[in-house]
Amino acid sequence: MRTLVPFEAARPKTRLDPFLDDDERAAFARSMLRDVIGAVERAGHDPEVVATAPLELSSASVSVPVAVDDRPLSAAVNARLDGVDANDPVAVLVSDLGLVTPAAVCRLVDAEGADADADAGVAIAPGRGGGTNGLVVSHPEFRVDFHGTSYRDHRRTARAVGASVRVVDSMRLSTDVDEPEDLVEVLLHGEGAAAAWLRSAGVGLGGGDGGRVEVTRSGEG
Amino acid sequence: MRTLVPFEAARPKTRLDPFLDDDERAAFARSMLRDVIGAVERAGHDPEVVATAPLELSSASVSVPVAVDDRPLSAAVNARLDGVDANDPVAVLVSDLGLVTPAAVCRLVDAEGADADADAGVAIAPGRGGGTNGLVVSHPEFRVDFHGTSYRDHRRTARAVGASVRVVDSMRLSTDVDEPEDLVEVLLHGEGAAAAWLRSAGVGLGGGDGGRVEVTRSGEG
Repeated sequence: MRTLVPFEAARPKTRLDPFLDDDERAAFARSMLRDVIGAVERAGHDPEVVATAPLELSSASVSVPVAVDDRPLSAAVNARLDGVDANDPVAVLVSDLGLVTPAAVCRLVDAEGADADADAGVAIAPGRGGGTNGLVVSHPEFRVDFHGTSYRDHRRTARAVGASVRVVDSMRLSTDVDEPEDLVEVLLHGEGAAAAWLRSAGVGLGGGDGGRVEVTRSGEG
Repeated sequence: MRTLVPFEAARPKTRLDPFLDDDERAAFARSMLRDVIGAVERAGHDPEVVATAPLELSSASVSVPVAVDDRPLSAAVNARLDGVDANDPVAVLVSDLGLVTPAAVCRLVDAEGADADADAGVAIAPGRGGGTNGLVVSHPEFRVDFHGTSYRDHRRTARAVGASVRVVDSMRLSTDVDEPEDLVEVLLHGEGAAAAWLRSAGVGLGGGDGGRVEVTRSGEG
């Protein structure tokens, strides 16, 4: 399945400042993007990066199409949903999923195709805090809007156009990485480039007695 | 399947102070406990509350066994794991899962039974921040320790006793409700008594433009 991966190429992950500096945030964001691309490919689907600016992915293993689109990411994604229907669905996966696995991608894609008799609709993988981290769109009139509490907005949109909704219950897909506390999840559960990048940068886990565990940083990596 | 639900009866959910006062936290914690009990029952399993102190569950719909055990909760749970094996597994589910559904309980229980030829082992549903929110134990030597970064500790324990490990990828099971920000998830995705209790107390959602949505409180409920 064609799988769009929108990517904010300029100034990504600003809420990780000052835990990571500008260059580090850019490198870490790209490592998560590589994990998402790799998981989509290994799940047997076709990733297509939609970036706000030209993008170099410095890894020999990455040779996916990158479309540069200077519109806001929602508009750039929507322009690529023209013509979707139940026979030709399109998936969308955000790029900052440091816990993503091929199995998690399959659960999203399979959710929409689970019932062959279902009306055209949308499968949604919610993100923490009201966001939307994954979609499979098979209804021709459904359009995305990632701004604000997009999970509720996407459900509303689906109702408005008569699209069925399936919600995918996945911790891995719900964990988009925005805040330092999200790095804990990458270190504990990540299996790819993002977790490796953090470890190479000296980011580790501390605390854990009583309260939740915290990220720490040692050395210069 | 016998499903233990450990419950801290005295001073529950202290990290929701001052967002909720003492009595409110006690009421809210009990509403989540009712959701967990109800989800286990509707999934076709047998909940058994293990409480640190005598407990009244003021709902006509709740008539589950409540064992009072004044040991720390991990010890109280472990005392009830004597005799588990692959033919007689026991599940453990924490009581503060405001997003729990019967389907989520089934995914945990089915994970351990997914492969009939598997060695005796343990299925783990991780919680945010390194915790453990659900377990199915079928290995006779595995014991729990919910203190600290229990997800890693439980994996280590499994390795040490030779128990296979399956990890359940569920947002609903990963979201134990400890901090005010966790209430956002209950309001967005909860389908039971906990979400209803919050709404009746005037707890709602605000913000959402740009950053993550926040909980707000209006009136006295």
